[in-house]
This record gives sequence, C-alpha cells and structure tokens, in this order.
Amino acid sequence: MTENTISEEKTTLSTSRVARLAAELFGSFFLFLSIYGICSYGTVFTFSVIGSNILTVGLAVGLVYGVLTYLFGKVSGAHLNPAVSFAELLLGRIDFFDFLAYVILQSAGAIGAAEIITHILPVTSSSDSSASSKMDMFTWIHYAINGYGNASPSNALMSQMKIEFGMKFAVLLEIAMSIIVIAVVLKSQNSNGAPKKFAPLTIGAAYAVGTAVAFPVSGAALNPARATGMAVAAQSVVSQYNTTQQASAATNGTTFVAIALPVSQLWVFWVAPVLAAALVALINLVIKLRNDDTTDVEPVAAKPKKNRKSSAAAKESTAAEPKGSAEKNSDGAHDSNSDDAAEDADDMASSGIDYAEDDVTDEQDL
Amino acid sequence: MTENTISEEKTTLSTSRVARLAAELFGSFFLFLSIYGICSYGTVFTFSVIGSNILTVGLAVGLVYGVLTYLFGKVSGAHLNPAVSFAELLLGRIDFFDFLAYVILQSAGAIGAAEIITHILPVTSSSDSSASSKMDMFTWIHYAINGYGNASPSNALMSQMKIEFGMKFAVLLEIAMSIIVIAVVLKSQNSNGAPKKFAPLTIGAAYAVGTAVAFPVSGAALNPARATGMAVAAQSVVSQYNTTQQASAATNGTTFVAIALPVSQLWVFWVAPVLAAALVALINLVIKLRNDDTTDVEPVAAKPKKNRKSSAAAKESTAAEPKGSAEKNSDGAHDSNSDDAAEDADDMASSGIDYAEDDVTDEQDL
Amino acid sequence: MTENTISEEKTTLSTSRVARLAAELFGSFFLFLSIYGICSYGTVFTFSVIGSNILTVGLAVGLVYGVLTYLFGKVSGAHLNPAVSFAELLLGRIDFFDFLAYVILQSAGAIGAAEIITHILPVTSSSDSSASSKMDMFTWIHYAINGYGNASPSNALMSQMKIEFGMKFAVLLEIAMSIIVIAVVLKSQNSNGAPKKFAPLTIGAAYAVGTAVAFPVSGAALNPARATGMAVAAQSVVSQYNTTQQASAATNGTTFVAIALPVSQLWVFWVAPVLAAALVALINLVIKLRNDDTTDVEPVAAKPKKNRKSSAAAKESTAAEPKGSAEKNSDGAHDSNSDDAAEDADDMASSGIDYAEDDVTDEQDL
Amino acid sequence: MTENTISEEKTTLSTSRVARLAAELFGSFFLFLSIYGICSYGTVFTFSVIGSNILTVGLAVGLVYGVLTYLFGKVSGAHLNPAVSFAELLLGRIDFFDFLAYVILQSAGAIGAAEIITHILPVTSSSDSSASSKMDMFTWIHYAINGYGNASPSNALMSQMKIEFGMKFAVLLEIAMSIIVIAVVLKSQNSNGAPKKFAPLTIGAAYAVGTAVAFPVSGAALNPARATGMAVAAQSVVSQYNTTQQASAATNGTTFVAIALPVSQLWVFWVAPVLAAALVALINLVIKLRNDDTTDVEPVAAKPKKNRKSSAAAKESTAAEPKGSAEKNSDGAHDSNSDDAAEDADDMASSGIDYAEDDVTDEQDL
Repeated sequence: MTENTISEEKTTLSTSRVARLAAELFGSFFLFLSIYGICSYGTVFTFSVIGSNILTVGLAVGLVYGVLTYLFGKVSGAHLNPAVSFAELLLGRIDFFDFLAYVILQSAGAIGAAEIITHILPVTSSSDSSASSKMDMFTWIHYAINGYGNASPSNALMSQMKIEFGMKFAVLLEIAMSIIVIAVVLKSQNSNGAPKKFAPLTIGAAYAVGTAVAFPVSGAALNPARATGMAVAAQSVVSQYNTTQQASAATNGTTFVAIALPVSQLWVFWVAPVLAAALVALINLVIKLRNDDTTDVEPVAAKPKKNRKSSAAAKESTAAEPKGSAEKNSDGAHDSNSDDAAEDADDMASSGIDYAEDDVTDEQDL
Repeated sequence: MTENTISEEKTTLSTSRVARLAAELFGSFFLFLSIYGICSYGTVFTFSVIGSNILTVGLAVGLVYGVLTYLFGKVSGAHLNPAVSFAELLLGRIDFFDFLAYVILQSAGAIGAAEIITHILPVTSSSDSSASSKMDMFTWIHYAINGYGNASPSNALMSQMKIEFGMKFAVLLEIAMSIIVIAVVLKSQNSNGAPKKFAPLTIGAAYAVGTAVAFPVSGAALNPARATGMAVAAQSVVSQYNTTQQASAATNGTTFVAIALPVSQLWVFWVAPVLAAALVALINLVIKLRNDDTTDVEPVAAKPKKNRKSSAAAKESTAAEPKGSAEKNSDGAHDSNSDDAAEDADDMASSGIDYAEDDVTDEQDL
Repeated sequence: MTENTISEEKTTLSTSRVARLAAELFGSFFLFLSIYGICSYGTVFTFSVIGSNILTVGLAVGLVYGVLTYLFGKVSGAHLNPAVSFAELLLGRIDFFDFLAYVILQSAGAIGAAEIITHILPVTSSSDSSASSKMDMFTWIHYAINGYGNASPSNALMSQMKIEFGMKFAVLLEIAMSIIVIAVVLKSQNSNGAPKKFAPLTIGAAYAVGTAVAFPVSGAALNPARATGMAVAAQSVVSQYNTTQQASAATNGTTFVAIALPVSQLWVFWVAPVLAAALVALINLVIKLRNDDTTDVEPVAAKPKKNRKSSAAAKESTAAEPKGSAEKNSDGAHDSNSDDAAEDADDMASSGIDYAEDDVTDEQDL
Repeated sequence: MTENTISEEKTTLSTSRVARLAAELFGSFFLFLSIYGICSYGTVFTFSVIGSNILTVGLAVGLVYGVLTYLFGKVSGAHLNPAVSFAELLLGRIDFFDFLAYVILQSAGAIGAAEIITHILPVTSSSDSSASSKMDMFTWIHYAINGYGNASPSNALMSQMKIEFGMKFAVLLEIAMSIIVIAVVLKSQNSNGAPKKFAPLTIGAAYAVGTAVAFPVSGAALNPARATGMAVAAQSVVSQYNTTQQASAATNGTTFVAIALPVSQLWVFWVAPVLAAALVALINLVIKLRNDDTTDVEPVAAKPKKNRKSSAAAKESTAAEPKGSAEKNSDGAHDSNSDDAAEDADDMASSGIDYAEDDVTDEQDL
C-alpha cells in the first residue's frame, strides 16, 4: 500500500528540460495545426448550416488533445495551454522558468501552425472571372478565429437577425468551460504533474465538452495559445477583408461595419482561462491544506508521498522481525488500490473534497 | 482478497456535508448550463433538419454527465439528478437529509443555469425592421424544453403532418430510458454510493443512449431537475410566444393552437424517472436480499464489507502461525480481482442477478 | 499467477436460469426498442440526406449494445443475438436448453419492441386534407427494416438512379461484419462466457463498425433477432404500403413495383450471421485444440483453468516446505497479468493464434 | 516488480508465422473493405455537403482500426500498414522476412477489398434513359481515392472556385498526421511489438485524428496500403471517367481537364508515411540509446527486459536467505505498476523522453 502509493506517486515528468520544452513546442504545433485545420478547411464548406458541426468540432478537438496528452503527458505534462501551466505553477508542480518557457513555446507552436495554415490554403485569384464563386482567406479561417460580437463564429447567420453573441456571454462560457477543463486536467495528474492512468481520456473529454458548449459563441479557445496563434496570423487577413468590404459597400452604397480585429479581442481569451486557472488552483490548495491539517494526526499516512525513507526503514525493521512478516507481507500484497493507513486517516479526517485518494499514478497509462 | 474487497468497499463519499452539497449545487449548475446551451443555441440553427442532431445531442449530453461524474463522483456521488438521489435513498446509500438537500440544490442549479441562458441569449428587437429574419427567445430555447404533444421538440416538423408525439409515447420512453440510466448509475457505484472505476464512462454512455432515443419525442429529460430548471425559466417565454401567435393568428384569420406550457407538463418528468428509480432500486434490493440469504451459510464471505475487524483478527491469528505464512501470503498477494472466499460463496449460493461481485471500487477511477 | 488465472477464470454467468433468461428477455426488449427508435423516428426526418447518418446510426447502435452488455453481461452473457448464442453453444459455453431459450426470448423481446414502435408512432389520418405532407407508418419505419434490393434503406435515393444494392452485396457485408462482431464478442469473454474487463467497450465498438459499414446496404442486422422483430411487425405495414402505391399507380397510369416483403428476405439475416458464427467458433476451436496439444507437455500450465484442486495441492506442499515459501510467495504476489508457467508453455508451444492468454476476466469490469 | 516487468515485457506476438501472416492478410482485407465502404457508398450521397462528414469519416476509420487492433494485435501486432511495419523493422521488432511478407499481404488485402467494392457497386446502365440521375463508378468511389490537386476529395466543390489543395499541402498533412499515428502505435506496444493494454483505444484515436485532419485535403491515407489498394482498382475507373468527360466536353465545346490518375500520385502516399516512420523510429532509437547509456550504472534495472535469468538467480538467492523473505515478498507483492529498481534507475538517469517506464504490457488488453 504505502509503498505502492509512494512508487506511483514518484512518477515525475522527464528530468530533461530539453525534452520537456521540445514536447511543449512540438506538441503545441501538432495540436494547433490540427485544430486550425479542423476549424478552417474542415468546416468551412458546411458551416452555412452552422451548428451541425458543433459536436463534430468538439469531439475532434477533444480527440486531438487526448492523443497529444497520450504522446507527451509523461514528458512535459502535455499542458499545451498557458492557463494550465499557470495552474501548475500555482500548485508548485512546475517552477517559474519552466512556466515561462512553456508559455512562450506553446504560443510559438500556435503561431507557427497558424502561419502555415493561413499561407497554404488556396484562394481564388482576384483576376479570375471564371470562378462561379470565390474563396478568400477570411472565409477559410473565420471559424478558426476566437472572437465575440461580430467576430463570433455564428456571426454570418446572426447578423441577418440583427443579433450578436456579446462579450459577456463569451466571457461567461470561456470561464465556465475553462474551469471544467482545468479542474479535469489537475485531477488527472499526480502531485508531480505526471498524468494518471486515464488522463488522455478524461482531458480529451473535458476539452470536447468545453468546445461543444462554447464554440458557437466564442469559437471555444479555453486556451490562450490557441487564440493567440490564429489572432496573430489572422490580423492582417481580417484587416484586408474589412478594406475589401468597405470598398464594396462604398460602391454599392450599403452600410459597412468592420469585423472586430482578432488581436483587439485577444485579452478576453487570456484573462478568462487564467482567471479560471487561478480559481481552480486555489480550490485545490484549500482542499490540500485542510487534508494536510487533519491527516497530521496520523504521521505515516499524512505524508505518504514524501517519506520514502521512513518506509524503507519500516521495511528493514520488518525484515528484522521474521514473526511479523506474515502481516507485513499481506499488507504489501494488497492491490494497489487498497490503501489501509491512508484511508484510515481519511476516514477520521477527510475534510472537504477528497483529492488525496486520487493521487495515484499508473505507469500503464492510457 | 477479502482484505482487498473490504478496503475497496470502504471508499465513501466525502464525509463533509458542505463539500457534498457544494458538489451537487455547482455540478448541477455546470451540467445544466452545458445541456441547455447545447440544446438551445447549440442546435437551433440546424434543427429544421431535426434528427441529424439526435446523436449529436445524445453524445454531447453523455460527455457532460461523464466529465462531471469524474469531477464530483467521489465528493457527493455526482447524482445531479433527483431520481438518482431517490434510488440512493431507497438503497440506504444516502440519508433523508442529504436526499432533501440534494434534490433542492440540483433543482436550484438547474433553475440558475436556465435563467442565465434565457436572459443572455440575444433576441431581435421587435422594432428592428431591417432584420431579414427574426430571432425570439422561444425559438432559441424550444428544443431545450421537455414536453410532449405540441410541446415536443419535433413539433415544428410534425405539425405540418398533423401528427404529434403524445403523452403515452413520452412516458414510455422517459421510463424505459430512465431505467437504463438509473440501473447503470447504481451498478457503477459501490454500496456506499462511491463511484467505481469506470463510472464516468458507463454513466456518460447510459445518458447518451437515453438522450439519443428519447430526445425527438420528449426532449429526453431522464432527470426531473433538468426538466424543472428550463420549465421554470421558459414558462413566461412560452406564454408570451402564445400571446404573440394568437394576435398574429387573429390578424391573419388563421386558427391558433397554444403550445402547452412547460410547467403544466412538468409532472410527467418527475413521475416517470422517479417510478423508474423505485423500480430499479426494488430490483437491486431483492437481489441483495436473496444473495444475503444464501451467502449466510459462509459467514466470512457473507458480510465481506462489514466485518473488517474479524478480518484483522484473522490476520493476527495468521501471524501467530509462522508456518502458515506462506499460504496466507500467497492469498493476500492475489490480484484485487480474485476473491476466493467470496466467490466460493457465490458459486454455492449465487441466486438471481449477481450484483455482489461488482461491488469493487477502485481509487484509480477513470 | 496460476491462482489468479484460476480465480479470474472462475467467473461464471449467473447460476440462476431465471435470472439469465430474464436478462436476455429484458435486455433484448430494451436493446431493440432503442435500435428501432433510432432507426425510425430517430432518422426518418433527415434521411433524404441519407448517409449523413451512417456513423450516427452506427455509433448509437454501438452505444446501446455497450450499455446493455454492461448491465447484463455477468448475468446471461448479454448475447442479445441468436448468432452469438449459436457460437457460444458450439464452444460449449452454454448448454442446448439455454441456447434454445435464449434465441426464443431474444426474438420475443425484438417482436415486442417492434410491435410497440409500429403501434405508438402517429400517422396522418387519411381523411385529413389539411396536412401539408402526410406521414404513414412505412415512412416511419422503413429504415428500421433489414432488406436488400428495393427493400434496402438506400432504395429511395437509388431507385431514382435505377440501381439497387442486391442480395450478393447484402450477404457479403452481413457475413463480413458479423464475423467481426462475433469474433470480438468471443474474444471479450472468458471460457465460461462471462465478460472480460472491457467487454462493453469492445463489443459496442464492433457493433458500431459493423452497423456503420453495412447500414446503407442492408440496414445492418448482424443479428437475426433484430431483423426478425421488425420483419414480423412490419410485414403488414409494407404489404399495405404496396397496396396503396399500386392503387395510386393505377390511378396515375405509372408503373408499380412492389417493395419486397420483409419476411420474404428474412432468411438472409439468419443464414449470414449464423454462418459467420459457425466460422468464428470453428477457428476458435482449432486454435484452442492446437494450444491444448502443445501445452500438454507442461501439465500445470496446460489446464490452468480446470485443475484448481491440483493448484491447491501445490499450495499445501509449499506450506510444508517453509524454505521454499519465499519463491512461492513472490510468484503468488505477481500482478494478475504475469503468468509465468502459462507463458512459458506459450513460449514453447504457442501455435496459431494466441487466445489462451486473453482468458482473463476481471470483476471490475467496465 | 522486476519480475512483473519481465513477465509483462515477455509478451510476444504469435510465434507461428502462419498465424501472423494470416492476421495481416485477413486484418487488412476487413480493414480496407470497411474503409473503402465508408468512403464510397457510405458518404457519396451526402458529400455535396462535404465537410459535414469529416469527423464522421475520421471516427469511423478510427473505430475500424481500433476493433481490428483488438482482434489481431497479439497475433501479428496488427500493423495493417506498411509504414508501421517499416518502423517496427527499424526498431528490430520484426525481422526482414516478416516485414516483406507483411507489406505484400497488407497490399494484397487492400487490393482485394478495393476490387470487390469497385465491382459490386451498382451503376446506372448507360442505355437507361428513365433514370432521373445517373450513378457511375467514379462517383461512387472518388472519395475513397487518395489524391491531391484535382484528385483531392474536395475537388468537386473547390473547382467551382478555381482552387485546389496542392501536393505541398497533401504532403505536409500526410507526413504530420502519419507522425502522430506512428508515434502512438509505437508507444502502444512493448519492445516485442506486442500491444499494451489500451492499444486499440489509443491507436484508433490516433487514426481518427489523422483522418479527420487530412481527409478533405488528400483523403487521409496515412497508410501506403490503403492508398495502393484503391489506386490499383480505381485506375481504369478514373481513366474511363476522363474519356467520357472528354467526349462530353468535345460535344459541348467546353474545356476539359483530366482528373489525375491515382497510380500517378501513389508515390506521395508511400513516401510521406515512410518518411514519418523513419523519423519516429529514429527518435525512439535515440531516446532508447540515451536511456541505456545512463541506466548502465544500475545493472539490474538497465536491462530489465533481457536478463530474466539474473532475476531468477536473484530469486534463488533470496530463497537461500529465509530471513530476507519478508522483504522479498513485499517487493514481489507490489502492484504491477510500482517498479522500484527500475524507477530508481530512472530517477538517477532518466535522460530525454522517458519511454522505458511505458514498456508495460498487459494481457488483459482492451
């Protein structure tokens, strides 16, 4: 038991910083290349029937996060999200240097992926008059941009009804869904930030839910890097689209309203998930503190993850008492999931939400 | 074995009532905010092609239940459903005070979420004549309201064919699908009401199936709180919609039929799942009784979850017999899933459906 | 190891025949009520865009099988499919009486569910001239009927192109997909027919694949009971539809071609999956025989599931040799998945496909 | 621990070459029959709304790979993909003969499935003038062909806008998504190439992501055999389609552009995934080398998978020291996931990405 918990708890992220940073950079690049692809050429043809793809986008995005968590979870923790890294920093699972480097590399991966997508997608030559309809870059990517008001993915349909999904709604959903995502990510890790057994599944499902619920309103960033990469790459695309529309409106004598530029709305997609991260980290800390307080009465169980040495000592003393071996052995022989001492302490003390007993990591992860 | 089963069986919900009640309140709020969102702005644009979204809604709803079961299952059991709480009360897994508080907080969470959705969604100003089409609140939310007859989500299409999904069909499906959902929830928990290993997956899948099957007919409540929250918030919306339609019908000289008000149909969505809960709880109790009867011949196995002390005693007696340690150890060393004594009893006695052997909880839950 | 394998292998279906038969009856009823619902009112509104729902139907059907396998797998094996029961009979996992009773009850559950669906769905009164379009029972249920030629679910679209999915194609897919389904079902069980750990997931996925691939051609029965229930209930509906169409064709002077009656094509949906079952069972038997032959050289490993007594004897002899206890214990202490003796035998002997090492059941099933 | 790891690590593919080759042949046939079916008759009716089916195709393809990995993973490794077999060859998990035979049989299975599909699908007789629309073989299968430029699945819609998804984009996505797929496949196996516990789930998810992202651009081969089978069978279909179109264009005086023949583009779908395989295998080898270097300081842990004998020796020496048995036992009694010695080595040495600790196979696979 105790030994099991300790050895499972021991699982850490890669001790090589190069490996960790490479994982965040390449993981983010693959993640955002996939997400931007799914939300641009992957949905643009059918989005006149917006909504039919809400779960489609949600599930696809969830699958991508799940697969990359599986690939990189044990190396860097597979945060791939500055808000997640912020929560990990607050909980002391990564140090400040890693936090900074992670956030920069996540954003870099996102910008790289967005630049590729916005340069590789083909657009109708403006001089080609034989095209029965024209495709411009804004049409390709506007579902991949996070925004609200007339920059919301639903704007094309909603503007016909003279309505908009405003900032308040976008903020509400970005915070609420980020809370779910970050709470699930933290619960899917051990106290070293290494993924528990089903982390790819639970984290993927959380992003799927968050994306399905928030996509029609704000494009479902839930991740500052996701919003940043496309905002940077799309800024000039939206700007140019506005210029073209303005010229066309002037010619036709119709009124013109500029689409909000993505960088001007970007702060929302940093503030909302970072607030959610702070909130979730705080709740985790409070619960942890309360559990530590109460479990202090039972020393062995109170710090099952730290005092590996004392456990080794216990082992030796057992070896010195052959008579006691039967009991000791049957203890050690427990399945990994029974945790007598720790649970006794829980029974007596368990105050607040019971996170401690989930701190079990499994190398045979999903 | 015996010890494993005992320690696994020991897993309980949080001993802090504040934590449990907070989990039900916030869990319900996030759950219903997501479900109401998915069923209102998430589907309204495409539901003229009703049906294409049947599985979409089902899967999305299942994912949301699964994720919240993962987050709150070990705190409060993550019932998030008065019918589930009722079944747990009948099985003695929660006390009457908790039951009452759970139901009130689940309903409160649902009403809060519904009020936010019905106030934050933007509607076309009635004075705006430039809108090419108009969006009113009833159109936004009518797929999120549970109802039958002309309040069924399929009504828009079916009224053109002069047909309706009546109360009988709604009751049939709400009961049948609630039976599946509640049976899966109870089977996914240990006898303390704590979630077993794959509870988020199995419970999510059950709600997905139930929602996919019942949605076109009744909106698939399967949960009195889900129906109640939106019924309360939508009552005045539907009422106002009827008034507008009546005025319009009077002007055009067409016949007017009022849409049934949600609160007037609400009783169906309480009675059906509560009946299902009573039925499933009853079957569980009968099976448990029959198993207890037959397993009484083998005392140790008969109450493997209660008499932890006698097991400790057994351990001590073993310690007193060093020669026997080899056998004892290999016993204790069994994988968590082999359960010799208990299974022997099963072999002899197993009468009816074999629930006992599923009563294994795993802290490394999904 | 040996002991683990034995105890896991011990898991059996419920010893109460009443429980087993009740599980097959009620399981089939819920299963087919869901499937018929999903394939009738669940898809009919959108199937003019046939195909968009291919995966929808596949996933929904897979989810239903998965959930019911979870609920009833340990009681009756949750065959819910006469072809599966036939394979189990050939492998000696159920006796002939159970086989017969299972098949009858599965068919009864299906017929009951189909009768309810075909009586509860509302149709436009033929005297109602105010309906802008009319809904008849054939339109409601024709995607729920298994058939080929002009009874294929794709017929409405294909008849405009003067083409049909013929019997040969239907037979090919029904056999190929039934092979996949039945192979996965057998591999998901231990040698007693009790479900292994992830049975609901693997079986659900197999039915999802089979349904997604075969649905457009034949409606994807993959299960004689599924085809039979709806064929019996729909026979008069199709017959009446033909009469109406014939009268209408006579009036309009157009040519009339009768839709094939479901009972007349029913034999295909019995023969194809039963052939698949026989084939898969045969392959399993051959592999088992070859493994038994080769593993006979290592007596202990050769019959790890049968000779529980000799294992107990081994245990006693160990107890008599205190010196040897260390090795014995560490053996017994292995994780459930290491199986030294059995694997050694495998290494030496493993001939053909290696089924033996999958014969591990886990009570903590999904 | 050590023993657990060893015994888990021992899991190998079937030792019978006949079984392995049969698994690759039949596995490939079922796989490609399903994929070609899903991408031809399964989507053709709705693909005028291309994109709505992007995730549909992705999920369906992922499910098929997952189910076949479950069925054949322990026999042949269920590569079903020449690029995967190439990576396995580079890592020394299969020998050159197997590699060659696997690739030939995978391609043979694909060609067989493609020939059946292209011969069994019904086409409108060219002399039938009563058909309101006509179905030819090219229309049936063109979404099942991998290609770029005007052979891309999106071509029908894009040609109206005078744009194309070019070779560069196809190569980018085929390489990027193949990297994800192959990395997940390798990480889902132990060092003998046998599948770990959740291999069907992780591999299925990886193919689902890759297919969802790459399908609109290139049809998402990610597998040379998948591209080859349909290219061979479709070559004459496309050629004939071009002839017909040319004649029709000549008659109408419109310009004619031939669709690129599939075999002429086939090299891309071999080069891209094989490059990805080489890259992923190389990274795996580098990590393995670095780990081996650093772990050499701790001999026992350094080669936990090879020196079974020394472990047996350790066991014997333990047996010679009865006093030490208590400690030994509790060691052996650990859950399969705690791996003291190996982890200590990791703690000291773990350099680069930490693959070693994932090398745990479980016979109770998904």
